[in-house]
Amino acid sequence: MQLPSPYALFLGDADRLSAKTATGIAYWRPERCVAQVTLPGCSADLGLPSLSPRAAHAAGARLLIVGIANVGGLIAAHWLPSLLEALEAGLDLAAGLHHRLADVPALAQAAARLGRRLYDVRQPQPGQTPMATGRKRQGRRLLTVGTDCVVGKMFTSLALERELQRRGRPATFRATGQTGIFIAGSGVSVDAVISDFVAGAAEALSPDNAAEHWDLIEGQGSLHHPAYAGVTLGLIHGSQPDALVLCHVAGREHIDGYEDYPIPGFPEAIAANERAARLTNPRARVIGISVNTSKLSAAEGDLYLRALQQQAGLPCCDPVRSGVAPLADALLELE
Amino acid sequence: MQLPSPYALFLGDADRLSAKTATGIAYWRPERCVAQVTLPGCSADLGLPSLSPRAAHAAGARLLIVGIANVGGLIAAHWLPSLLEALEAGLDLAAGLHHRLADVPALAQAAARLGRRLYDVRQPQPGQTPMATGRKRQGRRLLTVGTDCVVGKMFTSLALERELQRRGRPATFRATGQTGIFIAGSGVSVDAVISDFVAGAAEALSPDNAAEHWDLIEGQGSLHHPAYAGVTLGLIHGSQPDALVLCHVAGREHIDGYEDYPIPGFPEAIAANERAARLTNPRARVIGISVNTSKLSAAEGDLYLRALQQQAGLPCCDPVRSGVAPLADALLELE
Repeated sequence: MQLPSPYALFLGDADRLSAKTATGIAYWRPERCVAQVTLPGCSADLGLPSLSPRAAHAAGARLLIVGIANVGGLIAAHWLPSLLEALEAGLDLAAGLHHRLADVPALAQAAARLGRRLYDVRQPQPGQTPMATGRKRQGRRLLTVGTDCVVGKMFTSLALERELQRRGRPATFRATGQTGIFIAGSGVSVDAVISDFVAGAAEALSPDNAAEHWDLIEGQGSLHHPAYAGVTLGLIHGSQPDALVLCHVAGREHIDGYEDYPIPGFPEAIAANERAARLTNPRARVIGISVNTSKLSAAEGDLYLRALQQQAGLPCCDPVRSGVAPLADALLELE
Repeated sequence: MQLPSPYALFLGDADRLSAKTATGIAYWRPERCVAQVTLPGCSADLGLPSLSPRAAHAAGARLLIVGIANVGGLIAAHWLPSLLEALEAGLDLAAGLHHRLADVPALAQAAARLGRRLYDVRQPQPGQTPMATGRKRQGRRLLTVGTDCVVGKMFTSLALERELQRRGRPATFRATGQTGIFIAGSGVSVDAVISDFVAGAAEALSPDNAAEHWDLIEGQGSLHHPAYAGVTLGLIHGSQPDALVLCHVAGREHIDGYEDYPIPGFPEAIAANERAARLTNPRARVIGISVNTSKLSAAEGDLYLRALQQQAGLPCCDPVRSGVAPLADALLELE
């Protein structure tokens, strides 16, 4: 699946928090975003021109992405006039919600009538995923892993892609979740893959490549998560990473939403992820730690990272506050 | 999903090997099987009366199970006359193949017209599986794990159910694969579940129960399998087993079909499975080893098991040759 672009980002009547997907797309791929499409009451603002779907198409957009999330992952009825206008104007539609665009009869009928496409990126692509082979592939691979969900794995992978490309190194971000897929324009939503095919999907996502090329693969979940560890393990095995970066949120004490499950210590998390990865790549190792220190002041965050770096003996950084240059250094030392 | 019974087992023109599913059902649930249905050329024989679908219904059968497997998991065109006769005679149909009965138009139409049901047990039941909660449930649970796929996990779980029930202990086999589901009459085909929901499906499969009740959960895959370890991990986490039994085939040297992946040593396999299980049940431990020694003579097999028992410090047995009484003893010692 390769998404058409440029993008127009549909915000509906969202606030800043529920526009997280659109915010990520606009932050990482500004060159691909030409407009935002809002409804009355919208308090999110990506700094893009606010246009109607028709005007967005005239401005060059080819895909309208539903860039908002809500509880339940629903397609709201009051979005339909905008989405139908987009189809009429010549835009394809994309969403990564639990519910599918293709299951809304008005959208399915309009798309069929007009020859437009509906991209439900969270849905498995039936019949296209092979079983994992376990065969070693050419090229280098980094996978971000985490002490929990929502700890900056996508952000860290994208920051590493940007840093390596800035240094003139061949590097490709590989997306495994909805927002990542919109940013990359392609990818596999691994949490929606049938369990038997997760490792195979990860193999297909980062195919053979030039020997010096780095795939920077977006991690999912955590080996320490009571609901999603299996997804994480399949992704680790299929990715065959040479390098892992452990991601963490400073101050988080238990798995988000699971009060009985403490966040693992760094040595434990590093050991578990290296052990898991070495089944399919015996050279795999954690090369650094990426920490979201936003709960701390800048000075405290700096102190935290320095202490952690000393304790772990690995480069540690906050990708938002200070970038990922030390992680990129460690990565290139592996070559 | 609860399957109707008694069963008639459809063998088509299968040989003994491809009738593995039917053989398992007839071996473990003879009281539920009233007939086999064969086509000319069939060389498999379950020792059941060979009847037409119509005669099987007259003999009491309520469900015709496609008890054979082929490469590709296809529903063969030359089976259709028998399957249609079964529907006409009043039988529901069940299969656990990759392809679905419900996707064969002739079967779907006949079932709809006659008010019969088609059970595709390998298919995920959409929208019914909750996310895993990680919450501790009442009752005891044993899960079989393996050094590889196809090493006797289902057989060992069923043998333990039989042995505990023989001793008057409350015990229930919980099925996670096609054959197991036909044997139990219900269950979840975990390899067909969307990856995010595997642990949740395992939680739902072995719900709260009486404190002294044992669920004997059929394991899947192996933590050491490059394609399926994620499925195994999700099943381990959701099952929250108090006890694990490690299953193995004596003489197997690499993961079946994956020549670059050696079978793990027993200490390594035991440590990996205990570590994984302790995330959701800190008391989990491997209580014994179940070995298929069929590649050895009876005397050699006995020698092998005695040496292994000494080395591992755990009860070891071949469930086919000598039963699982030592494993049941170890299990009941946990109480």
